[in-house]
Formats: sequence, structure tokens, C-alpha cells
Amino acid sequence: MTESRSLSRRTLLGSAAAGGAALAFGSLSGEAEAATTSGSLPSSVDVVVVGAGISGLVAARNLVAEGKSVLVLEARDRVGGRVLNHTLSGGAVIESGGAFVGPTQDHVLALAKELGVETFKEYVDGKNIYVPGLLGPMKYTGTVPPDPAILPDAFLLQTRIDQMSKQVPVDAPWTAPRAKEWDSITVDQWIRQASVVPKVQDVLLSYFQPSFGTDAKNMSLLFFLWYIATAGNEKNAGTFERSSGTAGAAQDSRFVGGSGQIPLRMAAQLGDRVALNAPVRRIIQSAAGVNVVTDRGAVRAKRVVVAVPPPLVVGIDFAPILPPRRLQLMQRMAMGTLMKCDAVYATPFWRKKGLSGSGLNTKGAVRVSFDNSPPDASVGVLLAFVGGSTWETYGTMPLAQRRKAVLEGFAAIVGKEALNPIEYVEQDWTHERWTMGSPIASPSPGAITSFGSTIREPHGLVHWAGTETSTYWSGFMDGAVRAGERVATEVSAAF
Amino acid sequence: MTESRSLSRRTLLGSAAAGGAALAFGSLSGEAEAATTSGSLPSSVDVVVVGAGISGLVAARNLVAEGKSVLVLEARDRVGGRVLNHTLSGGAVIESGGAFVGPTQDHVLALAKELGVETFKEYVDGKNIYVPGLLGPMKYTGTVPPDPAILPDAFLLQTRIDQMSKQVPVDAPWTAPRAKEWDSITVDQWIRQASVVPKVQDVLLSYFQPSFGTDAKNMSLLFFLWYIATAGNEKNAGTFERSSGTAGAAQDSRFVGGSGQIPLRMAAQLGDRVALNAPVRRIIQSAAGVNVVTDRGAVRAKRVVVAVPPPLVVGIDFAPILPPRRLQLMQRMAMGTLMKCDAVYATPFWRKKGLSGSGLNTKGAVRVSFDNSPPDASVGVLLAFVGGSTWETYGTMPLAQRRKAVLEGFAAIVGKEALNPIEYVEQDWTHERWTMGSPIASPSPGAITSFGSTIREPHGLVHWAGTETSTYWSGFMDGAVRAGERVATEVSAAF
Repeated sequence: MTESRSLSRRTLLGSAAAGGAALAFGSLSGEAEAATTSGSLPSSVDVVVVGAGISGLVAARNLVAEGKSVLVLEARDRVGGRVLNHTLSGGAVIESGGAFVGPTQDHVLALAKELGVETFKEYVDGKNIYVPGLLGPMKYTGTVPPDPAILPDAFLLQTRIDQMSKQVPVDAPWTAPRAKEWDSITVDQWIRQASVVPKVQDVLLSYFQPSFGTDAKNMSLLFFLWYIATAGNEKNAGTFERSSGTAGAAQDSRFVGGSGQIPLRMAAQLGDRVALNAPVRRIIQSAAGVNVVTDRGAVRAKRVVVAVPPPLVVGIDFAPILPPRRLQLMQRMAMGTLMKCDAVYATPFWRKKGLSGSGLNTKGAVRVSFDNSPPDASVGVLLAFVGGSTWETYGTMPLAQRRKAVLEGFAAIVGKEALNPIEYVEQDWTHERWTMGSPIASPSPGAITSFGSTIREPHGLVHWAGTETSTYWSGFMDGAVRAGERVATEVSAAF
Repeated sequence: MTESRSLSRRTLLGSAAAGGAALAFGSLSGEAEAATTSGSLPSSVDVVVVGAGISGLVAARNLVAEGKSVLVLEARDRVGGRVLNHTLSGGAVIESGGAFVGPTQDHVLALAKELGVETFKEYVDGKNIYVPGLLGPMKYTGTVPPDPAILPDAFLLQTRIDQMSKQVPVDAPWTAPRAKEWDSITVDQWIRQASVVPKVQDVLLSYFQPSFGTDAKNMSLLFFLWYIATAGNEKNAGTFERSSGTAGAAQDSRFVGGSGQIPLRMAAQLGDRVALNAPVRRIIQSAAGVNVVTDRGAVRAKRVVVAVPPPLVVGIDFAPILPPRRLQLMQRMAMGTLMKCDAVYATPFWRKKGLSGSGLNTKGAVRVSFDNSPPDASVGVLLAFVGGSTWETYGTMPLAQRRKAVLEGFAAIVGKEALNPIEYVEQDWTHERWTMGSPIASPSPGAITSFGSTIREPHGLVHWAGTETSTYWSGFMDGAVRAGERVATEVSAAF
């Protein structure tokens, strides 16, 4: 790590700390210490948390509040995992990772409030644009484009998805009455059997690719229905609309200062309880406790929380090894392929044209776009998700070629002014060693019914967090918070 | 490692060496040195091979023959990977892992001949037994039980599988004309669409479970058809019968002294070029070459061959990280769940009753059985494969309960004498840290068409072997040999 980088990290943590709400942190109070980036680790703590994403940080925070000594071990030189702020050259902040938040995501909203991070509504005024293949663009509002060729089928499909998802228990999808049947077919196969018109399948891609980083052809129908079921809370059953929509749904709002403020402020509160540059290589359990071996040395703990994506779990050397069914599940949960591409303009020029910036296109690099401007609209930002098979085409191109394709995609939605941004930023999560893809890990067909019941089963003294283990809003920041809270309660109860 | 264990290892390697054919091994000649089990590694070699399974050992052997300096790094305290001999208490040898060999598996047969390891025919005299659910047992010969309720459908299905598999290029299944369609549905779904009677699906499980360690519900149709296409050689297209049958097919013969002799003799020839107890943690490439970091220290190399199962590739820390598409493929190839259960009797008593010991059962722990007696029939051994959903039921039971179920399964096939063995041995590969399941890794639906083309693409100075990378007999010992030979040629050409 270069010095300049280290310096900027400390600055980030410092500025985040200033905004953090007070928390009764045992020995820690007043001025926050920074996370450590090198040097020796404490020789022993009550609980080691592996991974300083939102889930791990929430677990650590709650355990500290319970009086436990905690150390969070993070492989990277930063906290936040799949949540990452990016500062544009003009100073405005956008997100390179998870960004949106919406109703029923109560846990991340409560956490943000506590941390002093405010929300603002995603810009949805004006019309969305739908570009249906060879036809010209069509204006619409809401979630589904009013193409008479797709509306009836889209409505029917959405109704069926909602009805079927209600038969899938959020905490035990493997017990759904038709679990085995639904887990043995792909979503793609099911949609084709449902005889919807191909255009609906095209529109659905603009939902699947950003949500999963994969197309319907790779996905278990049972997993998909469960995912929809989790798009709610204890009082509101999940629906396709709440999972996929903007206003009133999962993309309703964003965080002022960027979602990255949430992990940054938690890390600032935790101070030197967070150790960066400390990839965990081995987790060795014995009668005496757990020994966690990192590149910065080993730490002994009474309990360990692992809060990293499933493919990274496969990469940790556990002794004794994971129970076979758990190991199978981890082998069968692959991260998606997804990148976020942002183009920055002097102003959000589309708004004056009566456009929202939201768009759907059935071809090209930009299958789906959003207005990603900062709350003060000091600059205009358009965001494209490039995922799944669209990533396979465009994510593997040279940058200049992809940039051109993305800008042309934006131009098809908001007009040719989009071809000349003042800045272009992209983040490809498939290049991230310590995430291995994005946005979430999807179990392959058969995995949930065969091995899914191990998802939250502790392995001796090792417990599991991460958004993939949540029973609501799995795959979202809210799921990460819920999982962190659940595991903290679980670990506390074990002491 | 305890001393007694270390001693027995040296003895095994010593006795294997005695039978090995001479090989022009550069500096090594005459008395073989043993593999090292501790201590420092050489600081640099031309080629490091990761994994001392058959594929890695073949690669090492061929590279040594080309005059390269080679070091094979093996995580375990033994060589052989998924191939492992087991000595029964009376002294006879059986296999706990890969065992069978058959026509068109020319490469492993040639290697065995060169190493002085002979083959003998799997016992198939007498009748096989088919236990179709509630009905009593039925005698038959050949591969498919003559149940009039299943024969027509089984024949039709087999014909279709063979025809379709011929459209899948063994070296590039992602280019098959219907690749995308076939990769987006599971085998289970396809079979149900083919409207075969449920009994045929039951019988098919006795093929899927030992072959893949998984059921049809988890498997891409394209992968399955490709796997069948690889069950042959350059002159003989693969067929379902050759992949699944006994006499004249994949289970035609076994090796005298156990298949374990093949890796043991190669390792004995390689001598101290094999380092045990040396799990590879990091592979770091730079302009100066590759640095391979193990628990026994680091080794520099000009090229590296990785010959381990895909989930173990995910666990190695590569710098730079694997190309995203390769990383995705590795995340989407899960090992199966499979155990081998052997019951040992004073004699192969079933032979006198006119039975082969081969059986199929549509329920219970023993879905498929084979006569696994040594060539001199000094004892009688029955072998059951317990895989896939059958493993999920029986593999997770306490040993005593499973033993009872397996013996009852044998009894249903050869009679109640099977209930009282003199010895019972089982090997569950899902408990093996350095294999993570068995017998092979199957890509999940969508993985081959999206990412399959990276299967043999070198990552800079890192090359790939292992049976999963073979274009013939992938998943078999023959595929492991072919992959090792191919990678040795590839690496040699790069020098």
C-alpha cells in the first residue's frame, strides 16, 4: 500500500467518524481511533469477525455493545465489502456498489438513522424510456413499459411469481410444498413453459442482470421465488414489484453522502477493533477455542463470525473442515457478474426534457439505467448496470469500446447529449479478489433443497453472517444488517 | 503427522517403486528417493505442479522426461488425489476412490502398462439383480434390466442421449448448435419432458449418483451430453453404454494391486520431486516468474501447472487474480457427494449362486452394487456407491445405522448372507479437505455456455490440468492422464 493511499484511508475514516452518532462502546469513547492497517494483532479476543462489510460490522458493533471484546479482520485495505463510495473529480460522491434503499428495509434504515446518514428519494419525475428492439423509444411511468405486446403476459407472469413466492417460507425455502420441483428447473425454463412472449423475457433481463448478475438460464426457480419472498418484512410479504420497482420499492431512495457512509461510520466507531490488510487464511478449532490465522498474524477467539461471500468461504482453510453439506452449499453459490457504469454530465439535462433517466432497452450495453445524480444535482449522473450475459459481451471488451457502447446506450434513452460526459466511471466487481463477483451469490439448481438448510447452521464455534444468510432482503444492504444482528444475538446467547 | 503414519507412507512408496518401469529421469536413476514430507523446499525449479493426483504426476513425469526441473506440491500426506488404495485387514487391496478402466481409455491403460500395473476383468459372470421397488428381485444380464415396463422408454432415451451427444464437440461444448438451450435446462427437467416412465428415472439414478455424485436435478443437460460425448476416443464417439456399462465399457476392468499403484509408482519415480504436506496457499506472478507459497515455504518457478479440483482452485489466492470468466467457471463447478461402501466376506459367495454381485435397486442405500473382490478372490467384496440424494439420506447418518442399511441393500441383491461381513469399509469423499467431494466437479446450468471456454486457457504463466479439463473421459482416470499429457506439451512449448 502506498503512503498516499494509506493517508487517504485515514482521512476517510476520520471524516466519517465526525458524523457518527454516539454509541456506548465500553472502553471506546470520545475521539475515534482509526482501523489498523499493519502491525501485530491482539493475541486474543472474545469474538473475531471475518469481513468488514456491513454484515460483519453490524455484528461487531452489537457484540461490542454487549460488552464483548471484538476484532474485525478485513482482507482489503478498506471496509464496506460490496458497498463502496466513489468521489467524482468534482467532489460529488456516488456509489460503486450497493446504493438503493426502500420501504420495509427497516433495519438498514434504522441503522442509517442511528449513524446520522440521511436518505433522499431516487429521482423518478418525468417519463421513463423503453427501447423495444428495432422500434423507436417509448415513454412510460412505473415499472412495466406499456407495450401492448407485453403488458398482458407481464401482468400474468408477475401475478404468478407473487402467488408462487408466497408458498416459499423465507426462513426455510427447502420446505416449500413444491420445493423439489421448483429447485430442479431454471427460471428460464419455467418462463418459456409459461409461454410468455419473447419480449417479456427481454424486459425481464433488465431485472435479472442487476439483481443477480446472472440471467434466468442459470438460476433455480426455487431460489428466485424465495428471493422475491424475502423482498418484504415480517408484516409485508415480498412481491416482485417491491423487489424490482423504484418509487415505493427497493430502488425508492439513496443515502446522502453515499451508502458507503454506513460502513465507514461503523468502522470509525469500532476504531482499532478493525484490522485491514488481514486476509483470513485458516480457522482452526480446538477444545481451547478458535485460532484465526491471517497475513498479519494469528488471533485466538472464543467464537468466530464469518461474514464474507460464499466463494470466499470455500477459500478459507477450516480445521476441522466444514460439514460436508455446508461445504457443498458453499461450492454451489456463485457470485454474479456485474459492473456499474456511471457517466457524469454538467447537469442532469434529461430532467428538463421531462425524462427521469430511468430506461429499459432490450439490446445493447445499457439494459437498464437510473438517474444517479447527487441529491443537490450539482452534476448529472446516469447509471447503467451491466450484468449477466450483457456483462459477458460488454464487460470483457476493452474499456474504450465498452465506454462507447455504454454512452450510446444512455443516448438511446435520454438523447445524444449523453454521448459527451465530463467523466466516465466504472466498477467491475468480477475483478475484486475479495468479493469475486456481484451483487450476490445465487445457489445453482438443486442446491437449496439438498443443502440449503445449512445456511445458518454454526460449525462448532463458527457462526455465519452476510446478506446471503438473511431471511428478508437477502442480497440487499438491509439483509446484511439483519444477518449481522441475528448472528450477534446468536453468538451472545452462546457465551 | 505421527511417526507410524510417516513410516507406513515411506514403506508404501518403497514397495511401489520396486514395481515401477525404468524411466529416463535425468539425474534420478537407480534407487528411488522418497517424496519429502517436511523440511525446506528447493528455492526454484522450472515448473511447479500443484496437486499429486494422477494428472499432476503425469504432467510432472512428462516434463521431467523433457529435461525440466519439476517440483510437485501436494497438500496431503499422500499422493493419488481421488485415487486411493485401501488394504483390508487380511492384506487384500481394494480401492477407496477411482478404480475401473475400460476400452478406449487408452492413455491410462498405456501408462499402467509402462508402470507394470496389470488389469483384470471385473467379475460379470452370472446374473445381475434388479430390485424394482415393491416387487421382488429380477435377474438379468447386461446394462438395462429387462423390466417390460421400462425397456421401451430406456431404449428410446438412450438413443436420444447418444444422438444428441454427437452434436456436442468434446473440445468445445459451448459451440454445440443447441448449446444455449441445452445449458439452460436440467437433465431432470429434460427427462421429465421426454415423458419416460418414473421407473426409468429411478434406474437412471443408479447411473447418475456414482458417475457424478449428484442427481439429474442439479445438472445442466449440455454438461451431461458433453460428458457422454467424452466417453470414447479420437476414433470412437462416446456413448451412454460405454460411459455406464460394465463389460466392454467404463467398468470393464480393474488394476491388479489397485489403481492406487499408478500414482504410487509415478511418485516413486519422481522421488524427492514430490513434496507432501505442502498445501499451496498463494500463486503470485510477476515479470520475474511465479512465486508459489506453501505451508512448507515458497518456491519460484518459470511456469506452474495447477492440477486440483475446481473448488480448490477457488481457494488458492492468485495474484493477479484469475480472469473473471475463469473465476466464474471455477465458482460454478461443484464436486459431487459420494461415498464408497465395501463389505468383505470370506468368499464371494454370490458367485456360486450364479450371481455377478452387480445390482440395481430403486430404493435404499445401495442403488448400485459391484463385485469388488480382488483378482484371486481370496476374499469376497461387495461395493456400493452411495451418492447424490442417496448420500444425502445415508451419508449423513451415524455409521452404525448406515452400515446396517448398506448391508441390507447388499442382502436384497445377493441374499441374506450379505448381512454378516467379516469387515466393512467406507470412504466418504465429502470429508476430504483436499478433494471436497467426489467423483467429479459438475458445472451448474449456464456455466459452460457462459464461461466454459476458459477451462484450459492459461492464466499468464499458470496452466491447468485435472480430469475436468480433459476432452475424453473427463471425470475418469483416463481423463486425468490425458490432461496431464496435454498440459506437459503445452508447458514445454512455452519454454
